[in-house]
Amino acid sequence: MNFLDLLAYAGIFIFAITGAFKARTYKMDIFGAAVLAFVTAYGGGTLRDLLIGARPVSWVNDNIALLLVLASIVITFLFQLNYRQFRRTIFFTDAVGIGLFTVTGIEKSLAFGLNDTYAVVMGVITATFGGLIADILCNAVPNLLKRGELYATACAIGGVIYILLKKIPLEHHINLSICIIIIVAVRIYSKRKRLSLPEI
Amino acid sequence: MNFLDLLAYAGIFIFAITGAFKARTYKMDIFGAAVLAFVTAYGGGTLRDLLIGARPVSWVNDNIALLLVLASIVITFLFQLNYRQFRRTIFFTDAVGIGLFTVTGIEKSLAFGLNDTYAVVMGVITATFGGLIADILCNAVPNLLKRGELYATACAIGGVIYILLKKIPLEHHINLSICIIIIVAVRIYSKRKRLSLPEI
Amino acid sequence: MNFLDLLAYAGIFIFAITGAFKARTYKMDIFGAAVLAFVTAYGGGTLRDLLIGARPVSWVNDNIALLLVLASIVITFLFQLNYRQFRRTIFFTDAVGIGLFTVTGIEKSLAFGLNDTYAVVMGVITATFGGLIADILCNAVPNLLKRGELYATACAIGGVIYILLKKIPLEHHINLSICIIIIVAVRIYSKRKRLSLPEI
Repeated sequence: MNFLDLLAYAGIFIFAITGAFKARTYKMDIFGAAVLAFVTAYGGGTLRDLLIGARPVSWVNDNIALLLVLASIVITFLFQLNYRQFRRTIFFTDAVGIGLFTVTGIEKSLAFGLNDTYAVVMGVITATFGGLIADILCNAVPNLLKRGELYATACAIGGVIYILLKKIPLEHHINLSICIIIIVAVRIYSKRKRLSLPEI
Repeated sequence: MNFLDLLAYAGIFIFAITGAFKARTYKMDIFGAAVLAFVTAYGGGTLRDLLIGARPVSWVNDNIALLLVLASIVITFLFQLNYRQFRRTIFFTDAVGIGLFTVTGIEKSLAFGLNDTYAVVMGVITATFGGLIADILCNAVPNLLKRGELYATACAIGGVIYILLKKIPLEHHINLSICIIIIVAVRIYSKRKRLSLPEI
Repeated sequence: MNFLDLLAYAGIFIFAITGAFKARTYKMDIFGAAVLAFVTAYGGGTLRDLLIGARPVSWVNDNIALLLVLASIVITFLFQLNYRQFRRTIFFTDAVGIGLFTVTGIEKSLAFGLNDTYAVVMGVITATFGGLIADILCNAVPNLLKRGELYATACAIGGVIYILLKKIPLEHHINLSICIIIIVAVRIYSKRKRLSLPEI
């Protein structure tokens, strides 16, 4: 396992924690929390795999995935963690996480023959639709679709730049890092400046 | 591109516009509107493809699909269109659209080895489940499942007649036209007479 | 058709009836009720098939599936049945049904190369996620995720024991029966003792 894998698992873990916190907000039991943690972490990649035709979906037989979700539930439950205590950590780790997920989604989609445009679409879906599905399971209007901070937009910007940089001979790790830095920067900047997309 | 393709794209465009209007009703931002427009237009066909095992799903790499959705968002946003202005146009174009989608869904399902009954089921899903998924994303009870005008029923009637007419040697275009005309007729008639299915 | 098939169809029929009752609670029309009955009966298996990569999904071209759903709608509608009259029958048949579905889901998942852990996960999904999807279609927070009786937990316990008993040479029917009896027992015991998982 290299540094990139570690980073990916950290991202997944934070996604799972976010799902567990959401479950608490909606007063679910620990089974519901496990479902929400899993869906938040893996829902976007699952939808991407279904759409591009990868089968089985990516997490099947990945025991580490289940362990991470389990750990997120145990920690959230035992220590009665809540969102406020870790707001900054979650915000930052989540931003790195969606950066990684965007790139992973783009690369897998390209490997399945998608063109650049649709690869970016799938990158954004990979990074952001897990939270959307979790919101639906909570019977809430998905945050992703409402006016707020730039979230999917940040992924889209990072994804487009990643695809463009692939055209010039640039080492993968550098390109990936640039993409993540851009997404984190857009996230921070949009939060500071209270930027958001206009309502339709 | 022939007349049929044009008709199909007109149908998709109207579906996308309907999705964009729905996004406005639920105060979403333009990203949310794009998601809703896409889901309304392509959600039914996506579900059909997943169920019958067609992969990747139909719209992958179809850049015109993205352009149509984008156009529907730009037009809805710039001209601040709303539903009332175009009620009649939308009603009629939508009826033609669900007719076309029903037939497309039936033909693709038959090509994947489905029997007549399930092909009609898939035709109805293709035509009507995009709006259902969009309603779920808006956190609303899907209109499709509630008492109201005959909508899925119109598609089912048109679909059954289409399948029956396929048994006699009839040119595809004529059969298609008959199916669309029947669906449009059922839609108009049921609206005029305020017909609806009984509550369970 | 053997005894096991009969049992499976009885389980599916009860699932469909449950879906039809849910449709009535949410004042849907008979088309909506048919969708809910179908989704309650087949939604879990459909999700499992999509995730493990079985295509098309299991019920395609199974005309008996449609007939069972149709029968559940006709009976619910004509006789204006309601949940209270059949509470005990439904509770018991449903418990047997989720037992059967858990085992079916596990066996199909193993056949598709899933490891024991994920096979149990898929067994639980097969047995319980149909109701979850139906709840989403009704715009309700899924019962499955909220604090209440042990439901998914019962399936998980039965599934784990089924997987363990597979390791020793035991006839399939006996193993299946033990799994179902355990799930029914957990269901009854948890209802009597008002057991439930803790909130997250």
